[in-house]
Amino acid sequence: MTRGEDTKQTILESGLDMASQLGLEAVSIGGLAKKTDMSKSGLFAHFQSKENLQIEILKHAADLFAADVVVPALKTKAGTGRIEALVNNWIRWTDMLTGGCIFVAASTDFKDRPGKVRDVLLRQQEAWIDCLRRMAQSAIASGDFREDIDCDQFAFELYSLLLGFHLYYKLLNNKDIQEHQRKALKRLLDDYQRSP
Amino acid sequence: MTRGEDTKQTILESGLDMASQLGLEAVSIGGLAKKTDMSKSGLFAHFQSKENLQIEILKHAADLFAADVVVPALKTKAGTGRIEALVNNWIRWTDMLTGGCIFVAASTDFKDRPGKVRDVLLRQQEAWIDCLRRMAQSAIASGDFREDIDCDQFAFELYSLLLGFHLYYKLLNNKDIQEHQRKALKRLLDDYQRSP
Repeated sequence: MTRGEDTKQTILESGLDMASQLGLEAVSIGGLAKKTDMSKSGLFAHFQSKENLQIEILKHAADLFAADVVVPALKTKAGTGRIEALVNNWIRWTDMLTGGCIFVAASTDFKDRPGKVRDVLLRQQEAWIDCLRRMAQSAIASGDFREDIDCDQFAFELYSLLLGFHLYYKLLNNKDIQEHQRKALKRLLDDYQRSP
Repeated sequence: MTRGEDTKQTILESGLDMASQLGLEAVSIGGLAKKTDMSKSGLFAHFQSKENLQIEILKHAADLFAADVVVPALKTKAGTGRIEALVNNWIRWTDMLTGGCIFVAASTDFKDRPGKVRDVLLRQQEAWIDCLRRMAQSAIASGDFREDIDCDQFAFELYSLLLGFHLYYKLLNNKDIQEHQRKALKRLLDDYQRSP
C-alpha cells in the first residue's frame, strides 16, 4: 500500500466506527476531519463529496464483512454447523464495531433517502440475504435440512433473529440476549431439519 | 383542545412523519418550522429545545401506538388470536407513517446517543417488550400455549420477526414479505402451542 492508500484506510476505519455509532448520515467530511485530526481539504482530496465518503465507508464495511463473517463460515462443512458459524461470526462482527453492525443502522437511516448510497446499501443487503439463502441450500445438499423447505423463508427468519439480537444487545443491553439468541436459533434449525 | 394545543398536535404529527422517514435525529426546530410553514420562534415557544421536541415526538408516537396497536388487540379474546391481531395492528401502524415505525428507526439512531431522548425510547421499548411477554402469559392462561414456555423468549422471537418484516418491507420492498411474515408467525405460534 502507498502512503496515500494507507491514510485513506485509516480514515475509512474511523468513518466506519463513527457511522456504526451515530449513523452513516451523521458522517461528514468536516466531522471526520475533526475526528481523525486531519485537514478538511485533505479529506476532500480523498473523497470529493459526503456521498462518495459514505459509499466508500459502506464498501469498506462490505469488504470487512465478507472477510470476517462470510468467508470463514464457508470454510466450515456445509450444513447446520456452517449456519451456526455464520451466526457466531456475525455476532463477533457487531461487537467489533463500537455501535454494532453498520448495515443494520444504515437500513433504517437510508430507507427513505434515495440515491447512490442507498443503492450500494441495497446491493449489500441483497447479497447478504442471498448468502443466507445459499446457506439453506447447502444444508439441504448436505442432508441436514429437509428437501421441501423454502430457502427464502429460512433467510428471512434467520435475518430477523439477527435483527432482534442487535436491538436487544445494542439498545437494551439485555443480559439474557445470548441465551435468547441460542434458543431461537436452535428452534429455527430444528424446524428446518430432517426428522432423524 | 385550545388553539395552541391544536397547533402543537399538528406540529407533532408532522414531526413524527419526518422522524419516521429521516430519523429522529434529523428532526430539528428549524427543519420542522420550514416543513410546517411556521416561524422558528413559534416552534421554540412550543418546544424550547431540539431535545424536548424529540421527546415530545416520541411521547406522541407512544400514545398513538398504544391507541392503534395495543388497545384494540387487548379487546380481542386472549390467546393466539390476540397475538395475530397485535401483529396485524403493528403492520398497519408501520404503514400509517411514511417511513415506517419510528421506534425501529430511533432504536438504531439513539443506541449510542445517551441522554433524555434515549431514556424515553428505552422506556417505550421495554414497555413494548413487556406487552409482548404479557401476550404469551395470557395465551398460557387461555390454554392456547403450553404452560412450560419461556414468555421472555417468545417476546424476543416475536419482536425479531417484526424487525425482519420492517427491513424487508421498508428498505427492500420485498414482494413476498407478507407471506414470509405469515409463515414465520405460524411457525412461531405452532411451536409454542399445546399439542392438540
